[in-house]
Amino acid sequence: MFKKVLIANRGEIALRVLRTCREMGIKTVAVYSNADRDSLHVRFADEAVCIGPAPSSESYLKIPNIIAAAEITNADAIHPGYGFLSENAKFSRVCKENGIKFIGATPEQIDGMGDKSAAKATMKKAGVPTIPGSDGLLKDLDEAKKIAKKIKYPVILKATAGGGGKGMKVVWKEEDLKTAWENTRREAGAAFGNDGMYMEKFIEEPRHIEIQIAGDQYGNFCHLSERDCSIQRRHQKLVEETPSPFMTDELREKMGQAAIKAAAAVNYEGVGTVEFLVDAHRDFYFMEMNTRIQVEHTITEEVVNYDLIKEQIKIAYGEKISGKNYYPQMHAIQCRINAEDPYHDFRPHPGGITTYHQPGGHGVRVDTHVYAGYRIPPNYDSMISKLITVAQTREEAITKMERALSEYVIEGVKTTIPFHQQLMKNESFREGNFTTKFLEGFELK
Amino acid sequence: MFKKVLIANRGEIALRVLRTCREMGIKTVAVYSNADRDSLHVRFADEAVCIGPAPSSESYLKIPNIIAAAEITNADAIHPGYGFLSENAKFSRVCKENGIKFIGATPEQIDGMGDKSAAKATMKKAGVPTIPGSDGLLKDLDEAKKIAKKIKYPVILKATAGGGGKGMKVVWKEEDLKTAWENTRREAGAAFGNDGMYMEKFIEEPRHIEIQIAGDQYGNFCHLSERDCSIQRRHQKLVEETPSPFMTDELREKMGQAAIKAAAAVNYEGVGTVEFLVDAHRDFYFMEMNTRIQVEHTITEEVVNYDLIKEQIKIAYGEKISGKNYYPQMHAIQCRINAEDPYHDFRPHPGGITTYHQPGGHGVRVDTHVYAGYRIPPNYDSMISKLITVAQTREEAITKMERALSEYVIEGVKTTIPFHQQLMKNESFREGNFTTKFLEGFELK
Repeated sequence: MFKKVLIANRGEIALRVLRTCREMGIKTVAVYSNADRDSLHVRFADEAVCIGPAPSSESYLKIPNIIAAAEITNADAIHPGYGFLSENAKFSRVCKENGIKFIGATPEQIDGMGDKSAAKATMKKAGVPTIPGSDGLLKDLDEAKKIAKKIKYPVILKATAGGGGKGMKVVWKEEDLKTAWENTRREAGAAFGNDGMYMEKFIEEPRHIEIQIAGDQYGNFCHLSERDCSIQRRHQKLVEETPSPFMTDELREKMGQAAIKAAAAVNYEGVGTVEFLVDAHRDFYFMEMNTRIQVEHTITEEVVNYDLIKEQIKIAYGEKISGKNYYPQMHAIQCRINAEDPYHDFRPHPGGITTYHQPGGHGVRVDTHVYAGYRIPPNYDSMISKLITVAQTREEAITKMERALSEYVIEGVKTTIPFHQQLMKNESFREGNFTTKFLEGFELK
Repeated sequence: MFKKVLIANRGEIALRVLRTCREMGIKTVAVYSNADRDSLHVRFADEAVCIGPAPSSESYLKIPNIIAAAEITNADAIHPGYGFLSENAKFSRVCKENGIKFIGATPEQIDGMGDKSAAKATMKKAGVPTIPGSDGLLKDLDEAKKIAKKIKYPVILKATAGGGGKGMKVVWKEEDLKTAWENTRREAGAAFGNDGMYMEKFIEEPRHIEIQIAGDQYGNFCHLSERDCSIQRRHQKLVEETPSPFMTDELREKMGQAAIKAAAAVNYEGVGTVEFLVDAHRDFYFMEMNTRIQVEHTITEEVVNYDLIKEQIKIAYGEKISGKNYYPQMHAIQCRINAEDPYHDFRPHPGGITTYHQPGGHGVRVDTHVYAGYRIPPNYDSMISKLITVAQTREEAITKMERALSEYVIEGVKTTIPFHQQLMKNESFREGNFTTKFLEGFELK
């Protein structure tokens, strides 16, 4: 097994990876920016290296500094966590060139999935259902018009280099297409340096349901069932759960097999997630594949009893997986607790935590890096904790979440706890009756 | 279901009961002494009533004050937790007389199990294996001599009113019997106001293995398998685990059936624990039955997925149990984190907690009432947290415990964390090779 793993990340995911390494008897190296000097991942790691000042571009995104840290400390592998360099093909390549194992996808796999339009073509070829739309990039407005007519309005224009809700525009009727085309193209060029665009049928009443998969270096694959991530605000997931209240056994099997096909199409190795949109008829369409661990991997771990980070490390080291699929034995929900003010447009609210008490007891998991006295730096993502509850049924998991939220004390900064408390009481949510549009009509009291 | 439950306890167990009440939609009333004014159970309960000053005798043991608190707040049931009044027949009776449901055993059941010598006779009659010894109380030293000769030395003299390691003396040979007899009798008279004594065969290499049971008001019983509590210091449990590394499927079934017999013999209702000593030959002997929730109920919950407090409340309300037994699906270990200095004879170390960070992640449960800024009062039990890990195998659960202990930060007071860390590394412990004597030869480094 690896002797020493460098964790090229911060916050809760750095701690999460560190935990599994410790349980596997692997030494750890933390890297940190000046702003994260007092972080727990620095305190708990066997070694820690400062890699630069606070803006990520000067530290957590700075490939030479991270490689140097790995070389100085003699780390034989790097775990990238999520975000930052986790889906950066160049980083994966540089690791390889320096004889350091990147615990994640190969540069080819990352590139293959990173270009949305190429990925869609690959999936179509592999027989994975994709959303009807243009065959690759659109030549011009005329072609866009022709295709929109064929697949019928509403349609959505997407920048091929976009993602996370940026660089996309829904068009409801032909007379709006020209303006949308010009604006989106211009914005994409400015934001991503790439104004390539494609078009898709716009799915109404969509659910975001993703399938967790794993693949090894020997061509074995398995799926670990779904996560429903439909509760989103401006394409940012806020609550995830598994199983999906919308799921049927038949659909799970179909989506699981499709996800495995998707992974096999790029000879995927490691753990990954194939994201689908599912419409009201339970037809599903490939959205994208994430070639890294997800924030919401926790809920899968809870319902299938499987440490996904451990698996990731083992696969990277060259171990085989059995190839059997995993099905939820319980129901798990995760609320992302962000240092944001839900009453003011979810504005980030960094600062010092003065009082902190986290919920506990049966069926409650908390993944966090904060504590009383911790200062949340303004430089990074505002997620400060993941609160997960597990129970036999969805209803019990929700009730447990309500209980856990009610005893979560975080003072000194605003958090999204009041939002989650109101969501858990919402009747449509409790009935499992929601789409990705759900929060658009959600009023915070 | 009950509308409002008063929790006649403090600390982590008050919080534990409160959590389940909240999940069941039951309102809660906390009671507290002056010393516990700032406790979380007070903060989180729907109502809170101060019942007197710090010494327990003036508050948590003061029956009239607690009954008055229940009446003022209109609580329809009282949960006693463990310790304090949880096994007090008078309290159970007074509750009944005041029309308040006591969530625990009836006065008769408590009395029946509280008198150790009467309990043993009941068990013998019911066909539950008991330790060979005197048939009830010993008349005099002569009878003691005769019986000791018959059951063979070593024997143990026990005060019938004793418990928790108090009022007992092992006698290894006949010439020591006279002194032991006189001393133990005198001490018992002074300590318990009852100098009645009985004798038992002293079990060498014993393991303390207990069976969790549940029984309803309709004569249905089930067992929920065992907990191994052999890791004790002066009869105080420090670490508990399930399944026991010493257990076989056959023995579990035999002990489970014996425990059900024991419960049935007193028409037991509620959840309870039948404690056995198991010798090197896997013969087992009834020790005592606890007619309340145990500190270590948590590990059973983790491996059988069953909320024991919820069950307790449901049974008290008159619900039926299915009668099917529960078997461990996982392995769980609990370390009791006490505010004690393990390097100075486990001397209690109350005071203020300055920094506090608790472990988290997959398979880690923490039940605690403390936080950064909390002052541990000197008046009560020194347990401040229960750290539980759960995994597929015992080895993984131990590894996870090591990881969790390593990231448990409690500053300001001394704790037993260093003791647990060393225990987890101990080879005999790791091999599952230990008896209740284990800690006598354990040197803290």
